[in-house]
Amino acid sequence: MIDRLLEQIRQKKNPSVIGLDSRIEYIPDTIFRLFVKNGESGFQAATEAILYFNKSIIDAIFDIIPAIKVQTAYYEMYGVHGMQVFRDTCAYAQSKGLIVIGDAKRNDIGATAQAYSTAYLGKTNLGLGMTEEAFPVDFLTINPYLGADGIQPFLEDCKRYKKGLFILAKTSNPSSGQLQDLLVGGKRIYEIVGEYIKEWSHELQGQYGYSSVGAVVGATYPEQMARLRNDLPGIFFLVPGYGVQGASGDDITNAFDKNGWGAIVNASRSVLCAYQKQSTQSGDNQHSNFAFAARLEVIRMRDEIMNSLQKAGINLV
Amino acid sequence: MIDRLLEQIRQKKNPSVIGLDSRIEYIPDTIFRLFVKNGESGFQAATEAILYFNKSIIDAIFDIIPAIKVQTAYYEMYGVHGMQVFRDTCAYAQSKGLIVIGDAKRNDIGATAQAYSTAYLGKTNLGLGMTEEAFPVDFLTINPYLGADGIQPFLEDCKRYKKGLFILAKTSNPSSGQLQDLLVGGKRIYEIVGEYIKEWSHELQGQYGYSSVGAVVGATYPEQMARLRNDLPGIFFLVPGYGVQGASGDDITNAFDKNGWGAIVNASRSVLCAYQKQSTQSGDNQHSNFAFAARLEVIRMRDEIMNSLQKAGINLV
Repeated sequence: MIDRLLEQIRQKKNPSVIGLDSRIEYIPDTIFRLFVKNGESGFQAATEAILYFNKSIIDAIFDIIPAIKVQTAYYEMYGVHGMQVFRDTCAYAQSKGLIVIGDAKRNDIGATAQAYSTAYLGKTNLGLGMTEEAFPVDFLTINPYLGADGIQPFLEDCKRYKKGLFILAKTSNPSSGQLQDLLVGGKRIYEIVGEYIKEWSHELQGQYGYSSVGAVVGATYPEQMARLRNDLPGIFFLVPGYGVQGASGDDITNAFDKNGWGAIVNASRSVLCAYQKQSTQSGDNQHSNFAFAARLEVIRMRDEIMNSLQKAGINLV
Repeated sequence: MIDRLLEQIRQKKNPSVIGLDSRIEYIPDTIFRLFVKNGESGFQAATEAILYFNKSIIDAIFDIIPAIKVQTAYYEMYGVHGMQVFRDTCAYAQSKGLIVIGDAKRNDIGATAQAYSTAYLGKTNLGLGMTEEAFPVDFLTINPYLGADGIQPFLEDCKRYKKGLFILAKTSNPSSGQLQDLLVGGKRIYEIVGEYIKEWSHELQGQYGYSSVGAVVGATYPEQMARLRNDLPGIFFLVPGYGVQGASGDDITNAFDKNGWGAIVNASRSVLCAYQKQSTQSGDNQHSNFAFAARLEVIRMRDEIMNSLQKAGINLV
């Protein structure tokens, strides 16, 4: 799966991924009201609006991005209807040729990790010889706190179903250091997790030198990112923290190798809500422009990243 | 919420919780076939069977247990239908007076942690002044790897909606030590997490000396459990690992205080699949007996735990 991601990045000349952390607060009011019936809202109306919003954004950007990231939390928040929209959004993005990263940060003990893996990467046994996919994504983010036997089932399914993982190493949030930066015999926890990821990555090597087992490394910590890039040459990084969380193009160059490979940078809110900033500036109608505003922001972000890479002497090949 | 849990434990004289990690492989074949239409299975048939199985088990044991634990992974595995059954199972258990622990082990950066918290502990904004609960549970398990700003939104919602948390400290699986036992300046990671949990617990103190912010501490590591019990006097433990995972009654006495308070022990598969063992022994029909077999196993487990506590000089008051 990592090969497909890298090929998409090279083809679109864009190492960024857009996070569909969609919620009704982000949807232009004129759009949201189209889905309200008799002046009443509910999970049905809210999720119909979100699916419309997501599809419109995907339609507006699918030709210029390699992948989308769909954050499960924002769909679980809308209950059973929300999970249907999670599924529909992932399927729609895949139908447009996009690679879908399910950002679920799941994990548990072995048997339960297997159930999560089945839910997102594998196929569920339904009896009588029938199986079906529950919430199929191409990559899944997972949490390493439980150690290897919580990881193994995901690795097996990645091999079997040609999927990929991004395992949390150094997250982008302000308090990520509370555990992740603790020093154990001269090494930080996030570095130790990095070493485990390296170990786990071996059986899922792709043809371009990267494994389908990657790492989550926050753009907000460029120094730690540089250390991990150096220590983990074959590990692809999913890089959150760009945009609203504060990191800029220059902060993320450390995540890339000399070919411009090795990382994909995520932005969510800055793209989904780009219309708010742009319409304030231009006075345009939000209704028709939220998707186009997202496209402009995706292009701006892509160009900023590519410029930063170039400044750092890196050309995406 | 911790007060209600403790009152339920004392009233039922049973510090154990049953995990509804239900899956079709656990359902007696004669039951499963009742839900199959035209010889075909699918998410619909599978989840109807699981809901029937869960309700039957709850009906058979609700009067003798304080709480159930519902593991999200096993419901996500059955897709959107599965999440509906997760919701229905939690609601049914609550209608029977049981406290529901949502075992989701979620977490993420602040804004996304808020979305998870809203999904399981809070109320989702649906616009036009309307709110609704997505997947309401009484307690939620969460993962500490991201540090305090991934915890804070859950704490706020616990205060606001009178809910509780169990934060992973030392998990029950074989490889839990890979990260959790690492030594940082004389302390293990799980102990450091324990100290954070103590810090986070202060604002959610109940009237019996325990906080609604608890810890997950595996029964399979009785020594580490004893250390945490000693270090964290006001922290309630959710104790997995009993039964199929290998821990027995004697392994869990370390989790309790001198009143027999301070912990609730979970078993899942040994109860759900008790009929397999018992029917083999007695030759009875599985169909009618799976729920009764679960009840017998719950009673056996309760008595084993109470006996072990008594042997250790602890009487539940």
